[in-house]
Amino acid sequence: MTLSPLAPPGGFPELEEVAGLTLAAHAAAIKYPDRLDMMLAAFDPGTTAAGVFTRSRTAAAPVLVCREHLLNPGPRALVVNAGIANAFTGQTGVEHCRMICAATAGAIACRPGQVFLASTGVIGEPLPVDRIVDSIPDLVQARRGGEWHAVAQSIMTTDTFPKGATTRTRIDGVDVVLSGIAKGSGMIEPNMATLLAFCFTDASIPSDILQQVLAECVGTTFNAITVDGDTSTSDSLLLFATGAAGNRQPRSIDDPALDAFKQALTGLLEDLAIQVVRDGEGASKLIEIRVTGARDDAAARIVAASIANSPLVKTAIAGEDANWGRIVMAVGKAGQEIDPNRLNIMIGGVQITENGERIRGYDEVTVSQHLKQDEIRIAVDLGMGSGIFMMWTCDLTHGYITINADYRS
Amino acid sequence: MTLSPLAPPGGFPELEEVAGLTLAAHAAAIKYPDRLDMMLAAFDPGTTAAGVFTRSRTAAAPVLVCREHLLNPGPRALVVNAGIANAFTGQTGVEHCRMICAATAGAIACRPGQVFLASTGVIGEPLPVDRIVDSIPDLVQARRGGEWHAVAQSIMTTDTFPKGATTRTRIDGVDVVLSGIAKGSGMIEPNMATLLAFCFTDASIPSDILQQVLAECVGTTFNAITVDGDTSTSDSLLLFATGAAGNRQPRSIDDPALDAFKQALTGLLEDLAIQVVRDGEGASKLIEIRVTGARDDAAARIVAASIANSPLVKTAIAGEDANWGRIVMAVGKAGQEIDPNRLNIMIGGVQITENGERIRGYDEVTVSQHLKQDEIRIAVDLGMGSGIFMMWTCDLTHGYITINADYRS
Repeated sequence: MTLSPLAPPGGFPELEEVAGLTLAAHAAAIKYPDRLDMMLAAFDPGTTAAGVFTRSRTAAAPVLVCREHLLNPGPRALVVNAGIANAFTGQTGVEHCRMICAATAGAIACRPGQVFLASTGVIGEPLPVDRIVDSIPDLVQARRGGEWHAVAQSIMTTDTFPKGATTRTRIDGVDVVLSGIAKGSGMIEPNMATLLAFCFTDASIPSDILQQVLAECVGTTFNAITVDGDTSTSDSLLLFATGAAGNRQPRSIDDPALDAFKQALTGLLEDLAIQVVRDGEGASKLIEIRVTGARDDAAARIVAASIANSPLVKTAIAGEDANWGRIVMAVGKAGQEIDPNRLNIMIGGVQITENGERIRGYDEVTVSQHLKQDEIRIAVDLGMGSGIFMMWTCDLTHGYITINADYRS
Repeated sequence: MTLSPLAPPGGFPELEEVAGLTLAAHAAAIKYPDRLDMMLAAFDPGTTAAGVFTRSRTAAAPVLVCREHLLNPGPRALVVNAGIANAFTGQTGVEHCRMICAATAGAIACRPGQVFLASTGVIGEPLPVDRIVDSIPDLVQARRGGEWHAVAQSIMTTDTFPKGATTRTRIDGVDVVLSGIAKGSGMIEPNMATLLAFCFTDASIPSDILQQVLAECVGTTFNAITVDGDTSTSDSLLLFATGAAGNRQPRSIDDPALDAFKQALTGLLEDLAIQVVRDGEGASKLIEIRVTGARDDAAARIVAASIANSPLVKTAIAGEDANWGRIVMAVGKAGQEIDPNRLNIMIGGVQITENGERIRGYDEVTVSQHLKQDEIRIAVDLGMGSGIFMMWTCDLTHGYITINADYRS
């Protein structure tokens, strides 16, 4: 597999350590030999957790187990495997989850209900649960503070580069760190917490407030990206707060002390989400779609998603073809209230339409130049109200077909 | 452009002439020189018309004009051009339609409001209306009874073969003929009368009843196909009934004399619709998706469309990969009420799942053999009720990317 042309030029960033968190990665030969395919994150006592998950009606077993374990206080560990998704594996899949939780609880001395799980890879095949369970003592033994690069690698499937981001902020005058990793490349669509992403902070935040903060920050970040409009059965975004920073705990989601933290978390999630799009299967261009002037934000989101998921828009951009008529088509099919005469389409900042047709003197040369870049900006103003939404997607290329027409073999 | 591997082996079928109808095709150099790109169908007085159109909110000018002209009695002509779609062309586009209607009315001695229009090709460029208007006298002069092959060719864009179908039935003991042509290959999605299709019969049916019959028959035919989930701005399905057969006119949509006609029309539309899928851009396989056991037919349709539009399902089939987990994913993301334990997935008649996981002794060899065929059958039973829907789509291949990544140049 070759590196995506949109991979960060500097490689994997230096992520800050999070006090109260240790990490380890391992090669358990789940699908391929000699490849990192398991990770462990262990948390000191006093950690809180929040999570958002796929809205698929055929959610994978680890998603079901995480939803259950979020009701328990005091998360102590997160175990993730790549290679096989443990999805659509019925009661067997849930039993495999129970075994992994029990083995982890035994190794770090906690209850199975304090262990979180995620799993990514091919759907419908049973996990090699014995190899996973056997690997847990090694992972527990090996964990240490700064193993970010290895754990980010261990959760990759069709990803071409590991994804991580880090930031600092303050709560009530106390410094806190936020670091996170993500994986995802195909089966990415924005109607949920897409893919796998794990974020960690040393902030001290009660779990109910942490959950609300996460739900608030996910809407414009992970729920604003799409690669192919396909929704995974395993999507999980988990946020763990170890409390080691020792800040005063916020009293509610509206506590002003949380404002900077929310902004920092949104930035972290947006960074990770855009890295996922940059590594979209076969992607050669990152596309930003900004819809304004909709009746409301929900309508803007529907129009943005219609453009972002249109194979004809995405192939035109792959071909660096200023075929803006396909954007008109995608706006039209979205089913929202539209007045073609008020529709204003811009590519790379160049206005293309006015009064329901192409403007006189339309500057196609400048648009064509913009389309040769790696990062494409599409802006659509509907002229109907003040609703706004921004989405990110990638182009649709031969690479997507090559990767997916024979993924299992 | 090479012929789709799914093209009918015998080539274009022999279509029956329809009394009261004459046809002509012409090369007007709309986008390419020396290529048939215009057609005329002229109707004897006494003809009735019905039409269903795109639900796009940015519908093309000819769609707006056809909707208006359907309110008038006595259609006399249909003029179609390929190459440029006359879509998102604002007031200029509507004016171009008026000019074409007026020129046709002058040449065949009728009112402009008795002329119907359609237009297919690239969106947003102005029509070369002078060349179109100049061609009309030639078309009027040249029209004759059996010019099916040429007119079917003249409306092609990225199509690789012309599409036509013909059938006979009886109304009240009187023989009637039904013949139709269609075009379409990309920008095909099932939530409307997709693409361009023109059907003609010598039956005598009042226009209000003809409209109801067409609306009834389109739901399980043209509205049950998808190539790429993208909805054209120009989709139009028109049905003209010349009345030349001289049958007793039916009194209502429920007149039992119409039963055989409805069945014949449904068959004709299904035949044309499946030809469009067979010529789906880059298609190498025709895929039939039958969803049963849904709460109701509407729910079955949503699940079928989710499978039919999933790029991961379509690329897996392109790769002849029995990756049934992607069907699970597509069922899960459809948002309908699902119990994974009742979900039964079959490919090529082979059962794959039971009780929420892969069945023991699953026969992947037979499924893999089936996937090597040209026609793939996917069946999904949800086990929740008696809702049923059948859709047709094609696989997603490198050919789709090649065709669409640089269509305009």
